[in-house]
Amino acid sequence: MNASNKTTKISEIGEFGLIKKLKNKISLNNNLTLKGIGDDCAVIKCQEKKETLISSDLLVEGVHFDTTYMSLSHIGYKAVIVNLSDVYSMNASPSQITISLAISNKYSVEDLEDLYEGVNLAAKNYNINIVGGDISASFSGLTISITVLGFQHKEKIVYRNGAKKNDLIVVSGDLGASYLGLQLLQREKTILDQHKLPKLALNDIEDKLKEYKYLIQRQVKPEINLSALNFLKINNIKPNSMIDVSDGLFADLNHICNESKLGFTIFEKDLPIHQQTKNASLDFNIDHVLAALHGGEDYEFLFTVNQNNKDIILKEKNLKIIGEITPDNNQRNMIKKSGKEIPLSKLGWDHFGKNN
Amino acid sequence: MNASNKTTKISEIGEFGLIKKLKNKISLNNNLTLKGIGDDCAVIKCQEKKETLISSDLLVEGVHFDTTYMSLSHIGYKAVIVNLSDVYSMNASPSQITISLAISNKYSVEDLEDLYEGVNLAAKNYNINIVGGDISASFSGLTISITVLGFQHKEKIVYRNGAKKNDLIVVSGDLGASYLGLQLLQREKTILDQHKLPKLALNDIEDKLKEYKYLIQRQVKPEINLSALNFLKINNIKPNSMIDVSDGLFADLNHICNESKLGFTIFEKDLPIHQQTKNASLDFNIDHVLAALHGGEDYEFLFTVNQNNKDIILKEKNLKIIGEITPDNNQRNMIKKSGKEIPLSKLGWDHFGKNN
Repeated sequence: MNASNKTTKISEIGEFGLIKKLKNKISLNNNLTLKGIGDDCAVIKCQEKKETLISSDLLVEGVHFDTTYMSLSHIGYKAVIVNLSDVYSMNASPSQITISLAISNKYSVEDLEDLYEGVNLAAKNYNINIVGGDISASFSGLTISITVLGFQHKEKIVYRNGAKKNDLIVVSGDLGASYLGLQLLQREKTILDQHKLPKLALNDIEDKLKEYKYLIQRQVKPEINLSALNFLKINNIKPNSMIDVSDGLFADLNHICNESKLGFTIFEKDLPIHQQTKNASLDFNIDHVLAALHGGEDYEFLFTVNQNNKDIILKEKNLKIIGEITPDNNQRNMIKKSGKEIPLSKLGWDHFGKNN
Repeated sequence: MNASNKTTKISEIGEFGLIKKLKNKISLNNNLTLKGIGDDCAVIKCQEKKETLISSDLLVEGVHFDTTYMSLSHIGYKAVIVNLSDVYSMNASPSQITISLAISNKYSVEDLEDLYEGVNLAAKNYNINIVGGDISASFSGLTISITVLGFQHKEKIVYRNGAKKNDLIVVSGDLGASYLGLQLLQREKTILDQHKLPKLALNDIEDKLKEYKYLIQRQVKPEINLSALNFLKINNIKPNSMIDVSDGLFADLNHICNESKLGFTIFEKDLPIHQQTKNASLDFNIDHVLAALHGGEDYEFLFTVNQNNKDIILKEKNLKIIGEITPDNNQRNMIKKSGKEIPLSKLGWDHFGKNN
């Protein structure tokens, strides 16, 4: 399953041997950790007047990821990104993670080294320390549990429930690409089974997938849209509410509106959709607007800001104003290109066939 | 599997329905949480000049627990205690946990409510808030991942690596009881299968187990020895090193000595062993000293302190001085009742038959 041919059974070196091996691979990427792995707890430096943010996610093989078309290093990388995204979307900075693994005996020591290669690269790229975790045997597959810690001043933290009437609805990057990437990978599963996605590189993919490299990358190696956050910071824009797009634009906008007790209207014409997403949607006979609305796993930022930020935001290509927050909590509408306004529930998940 | 007869499939109410149901059961037990469940992260109040401590543990069904002789409420209770113990053993106070569950479809909604009853009771008893987590389907059994957060001033945190030459070695409570409790439960597995351990009570156990109630309790519903910690606090005693006894006295004393680069001598005659542990050891033809040395899951505190605390500690029944830290890192000895000094590795795990 790993890139080299060597396979060492975990039982050969034991749990402690494995932890030691993986621990040696971990580098310290920031100086906020007083004590990392090696005691009952990790100890994180007190950050004067900053609150502590925490989030935990569980990734189960066969439910959240599939090793037949994703390398373990990509799975490790993505598992970290998904968690960091939760801290960034509260306008805070992640700084530590713990990672726990339950592993069945189909995995070798080298497999776990591959997984950790991805975990470590994500930690390095985002300046995070890995400070703890646990490793256990399991009876089926791989379960990854990650907890992320972050810190931020109270007045800078952005919640889901802060949206205001008439706020602009803004999204970073583009939507639907990761979902189409998943469709492509699932279709090519049998081909990929022989030609495994190489470790943290994408240059070995079938020709067929090459024209959709962006989509595959969005699915297997998502990144945090830091430039969007930096733009807000530089321009002193604090969103009133924010969330990361993990469940899909519609679901996540609903989270904001449910928590803020408001509604929304978005414009179909303004949804940011990559050309590859449109092309692949044609291939799959999927409406690319539905992919953008319901696809999920975009890990872009969805936020609402006061109207007086409109001119500044319009200048930034990486951000797109897609609609407005409305007073009526029941209004969850999209204005179609035709000009017709429809309740988005009529274009719901169930009609989309994600579960088919 | 739950106490009542009603069983609702998780698929009937869905993941969000389940989270809502379990969330409603959670009470706030301290005022250190600014935002609990319901956003991308929980937000914990900044605690002036205190460091943040974090620890994560993974509990896998069939590896760490067995539902055939432990109720789900006990499993939930113990899962929390095991984690809190890691924070207390650094001389810090736990204040929040996140809990993630991977659940196979053999479990019903009511089963998970039972599990949460135990989790919530532990949270209430130890003044902890449950601030987040995740729930996922799984293909086999139940996996519980808990992360605990705690806070403490830098100068009060106690590490494993701080032991000093000639330190007294002290342990709280008694040792080996939990291990004998496990032996009893495993022996009575078939009987218990019909007479399930009742939820968070022990009054319904077979007569045979009644005489060993203390041992069963130590295995299925361990508690933190807070009075030992309070004694140290009241008397201004700060241990030089500390750990909780989870792997067993010998293994955990080795952790301290490995990290502190020192050795130890302990006295067989001074090991604190409960009368029920001695009686049950006779039943099982086990040497109760070995049970105390290697049994594990005691969740007592093992610490080392300067000799000048000897008189105060001798007054406290809940604490027992069992030996001394020695300069030679290779010395890991026990002085037997006969007066003979032996290297403890000669009385190792492998001879103990824990894995037999």
